[in-house]
Amino acid sequence: MAYEVQEASLVNLYALSTLKDFACRFLRALGATAEEAAIISDGLMTASQWWHPGQGQGLEKLFRYHRRVKNGGIQPDAPMRWLQDTPAFALLDAAKGFGYVAAHRAMSRAVEKAATTGIAMVGVQHSNHFGIAGYHALQAAKAGLIGWSFTNAKAEMAPWGSAKPVLGTNPWGIAIPRSDHQAIVLDMALTMSGKGMMRWYEQEGRSMPDNWALTPDGQSTTDPAAAREGPMLPIGEYKGYGLSLFTDVLAGVMTGARFGLNVFQDDQNFDVGHMMIAIDPAALMSREDYDRRLAQLVAQVKNAPAIDEDRPVLLPGEVEFRRMGQRQQNGIPVSRETVAGLRDLASDLGLAFTL
Amino acid sequence: MAYEVQEASLVNLYALSTLKDFACRFLRALGATAEEAAIISDGLMTASQWWHPGQGQGLEKLFRYHRRVKNGGIQPDAPMRWLQDTPAFALLDAAKGFGYVAAHRAMSRAVEKAATTGIAMVGVQHSNHFGIAGYHALQAAKAGLIGWSFTNAKAEMAPWGSAKPVLGTNPWGIAIPRSDHQAIVLDMALTMSGKGMMRWYEQEGRSMPDNWALTPDGQSTTDPAAAREGPMLPIGEYKGYGLSLFTDVLAGVMTGARFGLNVFQDDQNFDVGHMMIAIDPAALMSREDYDRRLAQLVAQVKNAPAIDEDRPVLLPGEVEFRRMGQRQQNGIPVSRETVAGLRDLASDLGLAFTL
Repeated sequence: MAYEVQEASLVNLYALSTLKDFACRFLRALGATAEEAAIISDGLMTASQWWHPGQGQGLEKLFRYHRRVKNGGIQPDAPMRWLQDTPAFALLDAAKGFGYVAAHRAMSRAVEKAATTGIAMVGVQHSNHFGIAGYHALQAAKAGLIGWSFTNAKAEMAPWGSAKPVLGTNPWGIAIPRSDHQAIVLDMALTMSGKGMMRWYEQEGRSMPDNWALTPDGQSTTDPAAAREGPMLPIGEYKGYGLSLFTDVLAGVMTGARFGLNVFQDDQNFDVGHMMIAIDPAALMSREDYDRRLAQLVAQVKNAPAIDEDRPVLLPGEVEFRRMGQRQQNGIPVSRETVAGLRDLASDLGLAFTL
Repeated sequence: MAYEVQEASLVNLYALSTLKDFACRFLRALGATAEEAAIISDGLMTASQWWHPGQGQGLEKLFRYHRRVKNGGIQPDAPMRWLQDTPAFALLDAAKGFGYVAAHRAMSRAVEKAATTGIAMVGVQHSNHFGIAGYHALQAAKAGLIGWSFTNAKAEMAPWGSAKPVLGTNPWGIAIPRSDHQAIVLDMALTMSGKGMMRWYEQEGRSMPDNWALTPDGQSTTDPAAAREGPMLPIGEYKGYGLSLFTDVLAGVMTGARFGLNVFQDDQNFDVGHMMIAIDPAALMSREDYDRRLAQLVAQVKNAPAIDEDRPVLLPGEVEFRRMGQRQQNGIPVSRETVAGLRDLASDLGLAFTL
């Protein structure tokens, strides 16, 4: 696995507390409040433990936050406000604040509501990139509820039958709480792959599956370079297109954020929209019955024999939680390129550099 | 298109009223109440207008209803009852009644609730096959709400990495209301294709895409016969597996119905579970703003140029509504084999045969 090679040769390994402390101080230096810095750094640390540095969701995000705070696209300590707040739904104006913070507040509110009403939805407008969809869903599962997070995103997917990107990859996070176990966490874009993965295939000189992306004029290809400017292909062909359109209705149209071609276009006002849904899985029965029944379903799934005995059947999210455990033991990888870049920024910000 | 050839040579064409009248009388003869017969026949007529007779969702379903009412698996006029009924959620015990009827009542209740609370969920336990997922979602859209219907189904999908079917194709219906236009309706299984489509490819001697199904020992294949007893493959690989697992939590685990390997196993008690979610798309803004914004997104989608000019970009459900209009003009196809079979059953039931 190339990821593991890269992990050994081009990264440094750090203790979680070292990275988190640095991320918090960096964000505070950008103007984030203590609460904001805590929320964002927790999300970045989750990405750093779940995924590979090359996926760019960990400390690498600090470059973007620095750039966008400086240009006014992200406003630290933004004057977010509740435009609506009823028993089962609410709407948050994120006021160009940090997407992680807006999504976190929205899911917190959804969880509070669903604990009473059984199901609740909280929309967010005027936000920014919210980080990991599965992270926000997991927030609900940690409180014992099912979390379901949606966001719209920059147009990279074409309507089925076209090659013009109009809709985003529009990631979903779904988290299902389990008693005494890690939650089941599904974190997925609605496309077969992503631009970052395609770039990596191009750098490595590898051909890609022909269901990842099209050329800009709509031809099938296995050449990542030929599809660089083309549309990413949806999961399930027309089905993923329909799901992406639906997601933009929930996260964009309904919330008052931008949508379709217009979201993520203005660098000083991305105006991203999110929707958070929380569901009490024990609304319809006792918590004990829910736990017992879910454990039965999980056992059926996990007992299904693997095709390849070296690749056991896993629950969604299981590989990420295993990796998290390993990295808390062995250290969390940050690429040396990221460390060098952060050293420069820390110097500009007058921040003690501890990595 | 082979479907159209078959439509011309092996089917009779009927007026909608003729078919619906026959379906209603047939269902009444089986013991269905007038309300039940009206609900079920409306669903069957929708399938007859949206899809091809070979998909088996139209009048062909009457054979199954006849068989299952006779063996006790479906109980007409079942004593369904509300086990829970709160402002934003409810739970219906379908008492082995018709799945169409249970799902219709559940979505009606979800719509009533969401009109007040903004979002609502209604679960169903002890039910049967509910027909078309998109039909139940459309019920909400006709009332101005977003409808989202889920059901579990017989195990035909394996957990990712296994070849043993544990989860169903677990279809979703999503309907988004539009002012002065047909709703956007996405009706989709969570597998790339279905057993029926694979059987048709096998009969026609065609090879199938290699992402439809595996052989029973987990090998990739393009031979429908080789995959006849193998698992159907999920949309988006591990993503569709995660969505199917989640669907069984919503529709099976949470509702008190059977789930996983156990649903749809006992011919006298399938014990299928459904979940209906209704969302008021105008909860967070005025209906006029929602309509205007949705129309903008739809225009962006529809204005995307087609790769093949003979295949214009369509909204989810658009092809079905077009077909519905054409068939209301030209007649609705029923295969001659189905007509002959229904003639025999009508005779047994002492029913005047009018097809």
